[in-house]
Amino acid sequence: MKDRFTGRRVLVTDAAEFMGPAVSEMMREEGAEVFADTSDLTKVGAVEALVKEVGHIDVLIANLAAPYTIAGAHEATEPDLAHMLDRLMFPLQRLVRAVLPQMIERRAGKIVVVGSALALRGAAMRANYAAARGAQLAYVKTVGLEAIQHNVHVNATAQAYVENPTYYPPAYQATDDFKQRMKQLPIGRLSTGREAASLVLYLASEDSNFIVGQVFPYAGGFVT
Amino acid sequence: MKDRFTGRRVLVTDAAEFMGPAVSEMMREEGAEVFADTSDLTKVGAVEALVKEVGHIDVLIANLAAPYTIAGAHEATEPDLAHMLDRLMFPLQRLVRAVLPQMIERRAGKIVVVGSALALRGAAMRANYAAARGAQLAYVKTVGLEAIQHNVHVNATAQAYVENPTYYPPAYQATDDFKQRMKQLPIGRLSTGREAASLVLYLASEDSNFIVGQVFPYAGGFVT
Amino acid sequence: MKDRFTGRRVLVTDAAEFMGPAVSEMMREEGAEVFADTSDLTKVGAVEALVKEVGHIDVLIANLAAPYTIAGAHEATEPDLAHMLDRLMFPLQRLVRAVLPQMIERRAGKIVVVGSALALRGAAMRANYAAARGAQLAYVKTVGLEAIQHNVHVNATAQAYVENPTYYPPAYQATDDFKQRMKQLPIGRLSTGREAASLVLYLASEDSNFIVGQVFPYAGGFVT
Amino acid sequence: MKDRFTGRRVLVTDAAEFMGPAVSEMMREEGAEVFADTSDLTKVGAVEALVKEVGHIDVLIANLAAPYTIAGAHEATEPDLAHMLDRLMFPLQRLVRAVLPQMIERRAGKIVVVGSALALRGAAMRANYAAARGAQLAYVKTVGLEAIQHNVHVNATAQAYVENPTYYPPAYQATDDFKQRMKQLPIGRLSTGREAASLVLYLASEDSNFIVGQVFPYAGGFVT
Repeated sequence: MKDRFTGRRVLVTDAAEFMGPAVSEMMREEGAEVFADTSDLTKVGAVEALVKEVGHIDVLIANLAAPYTIAGAHEATEPDLAHMLDRLMFPLQRLVRAVLPQMIERRAGKIVVVGSALALRGAAMRANYAAARGAQLAYVKTVGLEAIQHNVHVNATAQAYVENPTYYPPAYQATDDFKQRMKQLPIGRLSTGREAASLVLYLASEDSNFIVGQVFPYAGGFVT
Repeated sequence: MKDRFTGRRVLVTDAAEFMGPAVSEMMREEGAEVFADTSDLTKVGAVEALVKEVGHIDVLIANLAAPYTIAGAHEATEPDLAHMLDRLMFPLQRLVRAVLPQMIERRAGKIVVVGSALALRGAAMRANYAAARGAQLAYVKTVGLEAIQHNVHVNATAQAYVENPTYYPPAYQATDDFKQRMKQLPIGRLSTGREAASLVLYLASEDSNFIVGQVFPYAGGFVT
Repeated sequence: MKDRFTGRRVLVTDAAEFMGPAVSEMMREEGAEVFADTSDLTKVGAVEALVKEVGHIDVLIANLAAPYTIAGAHEATEPDLAHMLDRLMFPLQRLVRAVLPQMIERRAGKIVVVGSALALRGAAMRANYAAARGAQLAYVKTVGLEAIQHNVHVNATAQAYVENPTYYPPAYQATDDFKQRMKQLPIGRLSTGREAASLVLYLASEDSNFIVGQVFPYAGGFVT
Repeated sequence: MKDRFTGRRVLVTDAAEFMGPAVSEMMREEGAEVFADTSDLTKVGAVEALVKEVGHIDVLIANLAAPYTIAGAHEATEPDLAHMLDRLMFPLQRLVRAVLPQMIERRAGKIVVVGSALALRGAAMRANYAAARGAQLAYVKTVGLEAIQHNVHVNATAQAYVENPTYYPPAYQATDDFKQRMKQLPIGRLSTGREAASLVLYLASEDSNFIVGQVFPYAGGFVT
């Protein structure tokens, strides 16, 4: 059995959504002390209070989720875009601002952003969501380059077609739309959450200490 | 002389900033009727009023500018991120929402977003700016794929190191920091605004009708 | 009418294939003296003799064509790979070796490689072709960075789905396979050769002097 | 301790060069039966004989090495390019041709190509090497998309600045040129071979079963 995270204090945000359950579970199996937070990080002061409460954080899994509305770009509303950014980008920035100083001081730490491949390749009818995910990935590249000067590692995945409670609930998997999308995906199936979590854990482990500001797609052939 | 835009109605936003002056000038030289807007598009209703006033728009140059603060990711503030998004991403979405319907109805139209290469490759001390520019580029990819179904073309440039009043005022060009950056840039000089505008005009012309949701870097070797 | 190439001496290779006809025609319309070569550049000494015969070359359009065989990677033969490289990569290197010295000496010159988007995104059943096109694009990135030190510009397009005598003869356009591929392509049609040539001419013109070692996709939404 | 490869038959090529030693060592530590081949795979029939001799192969680590000559593109010779392709691309194709059929038949198997980040971002004075590495990566994208139809996984790393006997011998690490390059690299140090091997092992393990035709950069910030 792997034990890469024994004694590590790991904060997982939106822990009941998106990759939260799978990452938390696998982190615990590998010995981490997981702080699986499910609070609403869009509220003023929520991020800062959370980080203060947890205290020492070795690994931050910036797992942020927001179900999206399917709509054409000319119909998707401005409040919808604001909502996407409020859920996906602003909490990410607050988390980085809150966690980075202690990591810089210790010259140690890992931040992994669970991102989306929809920001890498256009995905019709999801423009606002793609924009917010695109903001995350560009942010990671820059923060990654800065943080490595302090021996802190910041990277991201860019996943798509991974089973999770937020984007692929069982009800959706029963639809024709879902089945049609699976036919067009080279691998022809969803990833399990645990499969996808293995890449997140790799980027959170000491094994990936040479990887800087990188975005790793994980998408069953949706992007190559 | 080229005359690719004779009779075309072209809206250029933030026309006194960033690529606004060079693009407006060259568009006029090629026969366009240019609406060089310099109003504050962050105000409620401003974008909608502008598009209503201009009426028929053949080409939208979504040129949006926001000078950035140089600061580490752990120091850059949340209001700064909000400001970047308010200037760069929200007006873009409003512009697309306001202009796309008439273009879809006519099955004709061009939208060119003047973007930044700092969203493609990390740029230390500019994380919030990079995030907002990253949002723009991911948005363009998705909107581009949607709009082509209606014969409307949406693409972006991703420029860096282009002389312009917003990011490279003469005072900055006199600093040692600037000279140091020029040494590290393979081409070793700034682009003129007119040089860079030529790519924007290419993407706004009928010559680029086969290009869909694409981001074209323009950066003197900063990215390859 | 544009006249960007008045008096320019332009060498176009494989001039009867791929983008050769469209580029040669448009270059002439813009005033260039075009050397439209149709000789077999795989023969020993052919490239060197050609460049010597033409003499002064302002612009090299490295347009190299090789029809590919449709075959799975485990069936595509080694001679087929050798053939692809002999047609696409080796002549490119010889052309660069032969032309670069005079351009470096004059501190002026443009090399545009007509490349393929199949090297950017996997294309099943065309592995050897993709490999040879991938070699071209990686080569361009490196040569572009070197050549700019001497004020010589080297860039590439990465096109797909462009009508041309080599890859889209009329007979193929009548097949069901072709019609099926068009349905999957976001833009739903082939580019004309002249449309695509406009990007090649842009990269060959003085307008693109700030662009270094870049690969510009041109693919109707096949890549974004 | 991890034991992801217990009972797996793993073929590592050029096992004394490049990533061969580190990958072989770590594979053995995780229980694999490693066939660490050091024969010259450029010889006619060598690849086919090797694969026949090994028989059942669960994992192929296509680790191919060729020290490069530092030379400008106009000086690098054609025999040098031929040598790079003979060492890096042709053996890769032969290995894929020889190994893929048994993997397709069993509907199981992993091929990981150890590639180079110099193919992603230009690297002056190494044009031929970059071209051959670019051929590898484009080939992987296509073969990856094909192979997944048979439940076979083909992916690549694109590494740079990793300590290994081929590209970073101790003598080179003592030079000023090396020290200068380290200053320009964001992470400021070489990766150890074992660190880099961990990504290769991830792509060779069942954990990465959802990853298709992907190229994962591993480069200390050289690319983001």
